[in-house]
Amino acid sequence: MRYFKIPEEAVRRLPIYLRGLLSLSEQGHKNISSKILAGFLGVNHWQIRKDLSYFGGFGTPGTGYNSKKLIRQIRKILKLNVVHNTALVGVGNLGTAVLRYPGFEMFGFNIVAAFDNNPEKIGRRVGDITIEDVSNLQALRQRKIDLGIITVPCEAAQETFNKLIAAGIKGILSFSPCYKTGRKKVKVITIDIAIDLARLPYYMPARRITKV
Amino acid sequence: MRYFKIPEEAVRRLPIYLRGLLSLSEQGHKNISSKILAGFLGVNHWQIRKDLSYFGGFGTPGTGYNSKKLIRQIRKILKLNVVHNTALVGVGNLGTAVLRYPGFEMFGFNIVAAFDNNPEKIGRRVGDITIEDVSNLQALRQRKIDLGIITVPCEAAQETFNKLIAAGIKGILSFSPCYKTGRKKVKVITIDIAIDLARLPYYMPARRITKV
Repeated sequence: MRYFKIPEEAVRRLPIYLRGLLSLSEQGHKNISSKILAGFLGVNHWQIRKDLSYFGGFGTPGTGYNSKKLIRQIRKILKLNVVHNTALVGVGNLGTAVLRYPGFEMFGFNIVAAFDNNPEKIGRRVGDITIEDVSNLQALRQRKIDLGIITVPCEAAQETFNKLIAAGIKGILSFSPCYKTGRKKVKVITIDIAIDLARLPYYMPARRITKV
Repeated sequence: MRYFKIPEEAVRRLPIYLRGLLSLSEQGHKNISSKILAGFLGVNHWQIRKDLSYFGGFGTPGTGYNSKKLIRQIRKILKLNVVHNTALVGVGNLGTAVLRYPGFEMFGFNIVAAFDNNPEKIGRRVGDITIEDVSNLQALRQRKIDLGIITVPCEAAQETFNKLIAAGIKGILSFSPCYKTGRKKVKVITIDIAIDLARLPYYMPARRITKV
């Protein structure tokens, strides 16, 4: 089932709702109103109702959403009801941190391979993963890997990107906001941590800051 | 100057526009239409115009926005027209990656201090920064530091959060989505990299995926 004309912003918020629902459900909430979920996540309850309405109405007025059912439905909408095997390229500090990050399993992501070009790193282990030679990237096609995570330095990003596409990867999460590509068949999500930090001062009281 | 009733989503997007404008301006664009900026960033042009309209109309029909002027105005709105001294707590793999991240300067962020509780790390250098003992965090108040970045493991997050608040920090970027707090005076932005990855499968063609 595909859903059309849903704003990207709504899709962006669904995983946040899913994380909140999973936490509240774990705490024993069987029914969750949009107000409880909104309070837990620090967002607007009307926004939650509006976002979920794009996919059909799931709630019952007065009792809220059945948490287990809503979790199942959001997983299905986001195609997280299947396991997504994921490969990571670039096992530096950031790549190692990502490999050790405990939050992927909740969403059904399974990082099964990691690659680097540094001979000293190849063969070493991070958790359960043995680092492989980046020149073997094209073999990903045979390994049922859907997603790629790019944690290489800026200057290696474009080449890594091209190799992942050539290997049949369908979605990329990139921490290197510095490649250029005309290919539209592959969905790329870029994380720039400075962009997130840049919102903070807006909300801060104007004191103890130095004019430039 | 403060702006009220502006949706958080619009504030979230402004730094993205700012990054795009800075890149295009560097490439020599003196006037930038919302369509050019939207094409560069892969977003909707009407969204850009709508977001900017909350802060007053900046564009001229037909010629677009004066890029230098708009950059200055967005910086002012986001309070990025001043230098924000920033401290980082937790110099593991992720903390080291953040300290070495080249993208903060563009927005006026200056990471001036890093803390850890590991005696083997204290005194060591990452780039220009010497790692300090986390027990000295309260001295931040005297050092004109506004912002904190938390890159500690989950179990240390709440304590770090409390210490940063006690030290007078006004805004926190956290990579540990696992503290609880009732304090509303401090703005906290949490980055969960799994949340960003969770959007990807939605956009992927449905093939080569394994049912669970």
